[in-house]
Amino acid sequence: MSIQKQSIYIISDSAGETASNLANAATAQYGDVEFNLVKNIFITEFSDLTEILANAKKQNAMVIHTLITDEFIAYVNDFCKENKLFCLDILSPLVSEIQQRTHVNPTKLIGAAHTLNKEYFKRMDAMEFAVTYDDGKDPKGFLEADIVLLGVSRTSKTPLSLFLANKNIKVANLPIVPQSTLPKEIWQVDPKKIVGLTNDPSILNKIRQQRMIAYGLDPDTAYSDINNINQELDYAQKLYDMIGCIVINVANRSIEETSSMILHLLEIDECGYFGE
Amino acid sequence: MSIQKQSIYIISDSAGETASNLANAATAQYGDVEFNLVKNIFITEFSDLTEILANAKKQNAMVIHTLITDEFIAYVNDFCKENKLFCLDILSPLVSEIQQRTHVNPTKLIGAAHTLNKEYFKRMDAMEFAVTYDDGKDPKGFLEADIVLLGVSRTSKTPLSLFLANKNIKVANLPIVPQSTLPKEIWQVDPKKIVGLTNDPSILNKIRQQRMIAYGLDPDTAYSDINNINQELDYAQKLYDMIGCIVINVANRSIEETSSMILHLLEIDECGYFGE
Repeated sequence: MSIQKQSIYIISDSAGETASNLANAATAQYGDVEFNLVKNIFITEFSDLTEILANAKKQNAMVIHTLITDEFIAYVNDFCKENKLFCLDILSPLVSEIQQRTHVNPTKLIGAAHTLNKEYFKRMDAMEFAVTYDDGKDPKGFLEADIVLLGVSRTSKTPLSLFLANKNIKVANLPIVPQSTLPKEIWQVDPKKIVGLTNDPSILNKIRQQRMIAYGLDPDTAYSDINNINQELDYAQKLYDMIGCIVINVANRSIEETSSMILHLLEIDECGYFGE
Repeated sequence: MSIQKQSIYIISDSAGETASNLANAATAQYGDVEFNLVKNIFITEFSDLTEILANAKKQNAMVIHTLITDEFIAYVNDFCKENKLFCLDILSPLVSEIQQRTHVNPTKLIGAAHTLNKEYFKRMDAMEFAVTYDDGKDPKGFLEADIVLLGVSRTSKTPLSLFLANKNIKVANLPIVPQSTLPKEIWQVDPKKIVGLTNDPSILNKIRQQRMIAYGLDPDTAYSDINNINQELDYAQKLYDMIGCIVINVANRSIEETSSMILHLLEIDECGYFGE
């Protein structure tokens, strides 16, 4: 069994996010292998392309590209074939297939997925909305939001809000604290727009202890105390029952998974942006 | 020239973000064609898979998948071949190639890119950091940040901060307003970590007018006045010169493009997360 550093070359005329994500999904399958991910992005000069490929050849790299210009695609694919380099052209087969089916010519505009159109600005607005109405900062947000997230401390409210904002969805969130008074606006929101987040007590205990350590404090505080956590979670569950909202346990779920669950359960179409 | 609604089926055992992004990059090349993007995500049951493929066949859909289980991959690829459906298997060729080169077996763990590891929690922290230190809320953030963004109103400070946070980078930002006093912490930050954002006056004028209209106000206010905007931009430029930071004009640039420029100019490695 030989373990060596494997080079993966991303080549894109745009931000190269899709190819990078693909490389990450593949490399995540190999915990022990060391990879050298080289991102060559916003490549629009032929001279850059020839230099990149010369380096890729030297390192016997795996090449993944999302290029849109015919000459560039042909050059990279031919170069890799001649030089026996592994080459994954993920964008052009799909673009060609659509052309063949619709008899419409692709615009061949570089970075077309990043066009500064109405959808794009809607996404920017959703991001600003998430930041403005994070952490219950302004109760007005609950009435304007597409989704309202409730949850005790450390149930991923903020990252979830931002992730959903990236899909053009306006999200406001509110921390649930037993001692505090709920803003009255919560009761004016359609319960079908509200999600109650919860977590396993033992996981919350561990996360909160780590947080205390990160702050240079004693890990065992009231914040991380398991009895307090159980009380908080009980209080939250009773509140969710009163509101009549759906409840999701975020334990061992990534932000992506929880987001998908939320969209599925609230029957919200993800019509938004899926940027390259 | 026939234009009809084209179905694209995404099939993933995880969140399906990579395949969705790829579909978006391709469809963005065809402004006038209507697409029907069907996301089949977190698919782990064989019965779901057979149903999805039956529907795909009915609609003569283009299939894009990122599956990791051998049986699922073989089933989808074979089904599409037999039924002459367009099928783009983007993940498994790369996973196989790595296996062949390293003689290491892939873990075949579903959603491995979403593992709740140290990197993942670092990303969550970076997101919370961006929200906590958005809009100059707390000057402490400037000293802890990896990047400090400065800019007048409507230069994409918040979306840029969040986008970079998603790459595990801690970003704080500060709005630049001629009348206000700068927090003294700004002068304690290494200028190599600071980015001054600017924009074209005519674009700012238009964006700000639209914002006023969105608020139900007269579009021509002091906020959107071109002379005031020019003064603001002059003030900002002089400040950037004094600080000695790099300056980026965000006009006609997407968040992805500006982020890449920032990372390139500040020589920050994007070693972070590239989630599926």
